[in-house]
Amino acid sequence: MTTAATAYAELEDRFRRYLVLGQAQGVLHWDMSTMMPRGGAEARAEQLAVLKTTRHALLAAPETGDLVAAAGEAELDGWRRANLAEMERRWRHATALDEDLVEALSRAETACEMAWREARPAGDFAAVVADLKVLVALVRETAAAKADALGLAPYDALLDAYEPGGRQAEIDPLFDDLEAFLPQFLGRVVEHQARRPAPVPPPGPFPIAGQRALARHLMAALGFDFDHGRLDQSRHPFCGGVPDDVRITIRYDEDDFTPGLMAVLHETGHALYERSLPPAWRHQPVGQARSMSIHESQSLLIEMQVCRSRPFLAFAAPLIGGALGGAGEAWDGDNLYRLLTRVEPGLIRVDADEVTYPAHVIVRYGIEKAIIGGTMEAAEIPAAWNEGMDRLLGITPPGDGDGCLQDIHWYDGAWGYFPTYTLGAIAAAQIFAAARQADATITAAIAKGDFKPLLAWLGQAIHAQGSLLSVPELLTQATGRALDADLFKTHLKDRYLA
Amino acid sequence: MTTAATAYAELEDRFRRYLVLGQAQGVLHWDMSTMMPRGGAEARAEQLAVLKTTRHALLAAPETGDLVAAAGEAELDGWRRANLAEMERRWRHATALDEDLVEALSRAETACEMAWREARPAGDFAAVVADLKVLVALVRETAAAKADALGLAPYDALLDAYEPGGRQAEIDPLFDDLEAFLPQFLGRVVEHQARRPAPVPPPGPFPIAGQRALARHLMAALGFDFDHGRLDQSRHPFCGGVPDDVRITIRYDEDDFTPGLMAVLHETGHALYERSLPPAWRHQPVGQARSMSIHESQSLLIEMQVCRSRPFLAFAAPLIGGALGGAGEAWDGDNLYRLLTRVEPGLIRVDADEVTYPAHVIVRYGIEKAIIGGTMEAAEIPAAWNEGMDRLLGITPPGDGDGCLQDIHWYDGAWGYFPTYTLGAIAAAQIFAAARQADATITAAIAKGDFKPLLAWLGQAIHAQGSLLSVPELLTQATGRALDADLFKTHLKDRYLA
Repeated sequence: MTTAATAYAELEDRFRRYLVLGQAQGVLHWDMSTMMPRGGAEARAEQLAVLKTTRHALLAAPETGDLVAAAGEAELDGWRRANLAEMERRWRHATALDEDLVEALSRAETACEMAWREARPAGDFAAVVADLKVLVALVRETAAAKADALGLAPYDALLDAYEPGGRQAEIDPLFDDLEAFLPQFLGRVVEHQARRPAPVPPPGPFPIAGQRALARHLMAALGFDFDHGRLDQSRHPFCGGVPDDVRITIRYDEDDFTPGLMAVLHETGHALYERSLPPAWRHQPVGQARSMSIHESQSLLIEMQVCRSRPFLAFAAPLIGGALGGAGEAWDGDNLYRLLTRVEPGLIRVDADEVTYPAHVIVRYGIEKAIIGGTMEAAEIPAAWNEGMDRLLGITPPGDGDGCLQDIHWYDGAWGYFPTYTLGAIAAAQIFAAARQADATITAAIAKGDFKPLLAWLGQAIHAQGSLLSVPELLTQATGRALDADLFKTHLKDRYLA
Repeated sequence: MTTAATAYAELEDRFRRYLVLGQAQGVLHWDMSTMMPRGGAEARAEQLAVLKTTRHALLAAPETGDLVAAAGEAELDGWRRANLAEMERRWRHATALDEDLVEALSRAETACEMAWREARPAGDFAAVVADLKVLVALVRETAAAKADALGLAPYDALLDAYEPGGRQAEIDPLFDDLEAFLPQFLGRVVEHQARRPAPVPPPGPFPIAGQRALARHLMAALGFDFDHGRLDQSRHPFCGGVPDDVRITIRYDEDDFTPGLMAVLHETGHALYERSLPPAWRHQPVGQARSMSIHESQSLLIEMQVCRSRPFLAFAAPLIGGALGGAGEAWDGDNLYRLLTRVEPGLIRVDADEVTYPAHVIVRYGIEKAIIGGTMEAAEIPAAWNEGMDRLLGITPPGDGDGCLQDIHWYDGAWGYFPTYTLGAIAAAQIFAAARQADATITAAIAKGDFKPLLAWLGQAIHAQGSLLSVPELLTQATGRALDADLFKTHLKDRYLA
């Protein structure tokens, strides 16, 4: 065994421990959101903090860098070569910041998040702006340090942590394209919609037991394996756990079953991706999900492309009515389709429909770039926000609570994350189109509640690829083209102007 | 700050991380037994294994020994001095075995446990004896290595891992005393019992919802804080989680509510101890439970001393009947008391009553000493077992399945653990007597469902002491005497011959 091969083997062992400890964190996070009594919070925070520092120490140790350098000389096959590249990327991110900056950033994030928790319900941006200013200064410092370490532009260096290889230069034209398209398109959709009969909301209440049974039924139909996962309740729906034990949560609303149901189908998309990542690489970086945008593409493919479609709702409508005890016009597939594809510009991102959602992201992305680029200061965010909402959606928040204070992201230090939502939506349309082109039986099968053809294609084209390829390589291999917004726009036109 | 003080401070940080990672293990174990889908087993085993090796590395690192040596010169108060002693003890245990032995032992444990899982249902000792022989040889080697490292006799070196400071020389006279007492006493109890009316079993079935409500009601009455803990279901009841988030499990039997209820009260005793360990020392060795025998004393004090008593059942009988929908003679306190204090020699330890339980332990303890001492070989266990059961309980297992194969302990490598059960039972009687002597209102309060006087006394005398004192020091301080069986025997006579 050469030194280089030994170094690579040692890296595999080190990253295995790193990722398995990350799995432990995943289970503890799930428990915290679903099972933990409130008095356990402090102990849990301590457990997560020690796991975090233990993992960081494994990753950021000088040996890791030495091993990465040494392993570069090893003869490696494609998977191992990609694995080593992912190791190096993670190591560079972990070591880009000196300890003082990490600590200052962590303190500023906590302080700003605390201030935000008070400021949001009061709609009082002034109450958080001082903390946000401190945080922004440190985020800029972080971006600069990571830019140095990674050889990237500052915004790209932040984005890269969520979206490996993601670059502003590639996002800008996509988002510009959408920004030019959306306002006018939205006007046409609203007009078109006004000419159709308004959907009839199914009459509630909808008991939780029925909603749960329905969710489990549809999850199972989509291929969620309850021997390798669970469905539970939490305040905010999420997909957690680990690939062989994927845990989805739902929040039930007895007055309206649709948000909970759609959220669970969305999380099922995430779960199916996690579950089908390449098992041979479970505990190596190359075996992990490719990026946030690809993850979101899988959840949106299931939720938006599949489950809000006419074929799916033709299959699901009787199940929905059956589980929730409803019959009649409000419960038929056509009405449910109109209900679940209703478009209405609104102030809140997480409540937004498929057509208006990108506008929310584009406004945030523009502000992020300006803040990180130093051309905007924290105090200028509310005005920029309101201007963007007016320009793209024609609405203005009555206050910052429903405006620039609505999302936690910026206030707890997550800058460079927002664009991945819309990159995911665009990718979902492109991937679903490619799937249907590759297998013409997919749509007919969906109408019969058979998702095997779709999942078989996704499994090999996306899921089983792990992080073997870059995002552009993966999309090109799977869909024949790099990411562009054409098929997303086609999808929107087909669905909302038909 | 002197070097010694710095060394001590570094040890506190190291052991904090060690113990907090242990808490993470605790939550993952709980999840594994209560929530995890079966397909998650392999991933969970991996998570627990990496946590184990990560913790072991922290403890067994050469720096730990250097720091322990250096910290010995520090000026420390009583708690810190005791903390350092516990650190040293844990470090000595962790480093006593060389890696080859640890690995061989681990392999032998797994092989023997696997063989046992087949052998037990078949009652086929021959199917496991070869693996057990290998395991016994390695356990003896372990005992010898630990004996060297700790300066103890081989059996004591194994025992010390469960019962710090526990010594065969102190257990032998206690168990000899009981062994001389029990067979004749058991005869008198059975005779006495035969002259009283047999208890009437309350008629089932007992729906799980009612059993759960009852368990939660009684747990809360005993002081279990559901803001800092949960009650769930698992195959075997246990008390897990962490002190600020204590998780008890129960197994419901719809045909007989008594085993589940008594188990949950038993685990509540464990939980109350964990919950009231000294908060200032949560993440230090000195803040942990003193030993297995003291832990068991707290569970048995609640289950046996308190909850199977007339005063408790006078309070609980209406609650039990109310929750389970029963009324009439079978549900009154006197009948329930006779039911829950019924004595009957049987083959199975975990089903044994308070009078016959020690006999099960004494038989196992005798065999353990002979095996570790090299005067008995694995193949001789069945004969020794059957002879012991006959001598102490007057019964002989029809086969090894209900005999020496019934417990997993030996077959998965836990040698030196069994005596702590009966040490705990003896200590429970002694501690409860001291409590009542210190506060004469305790018994009357119990009869009214008020456990505060008892818990207040236990809290300061036992729980809040953590591992500050040795077991003999703790018992002497709390009860005025070292452990002896007198008060346990008095308790048995008072309860079973009155």
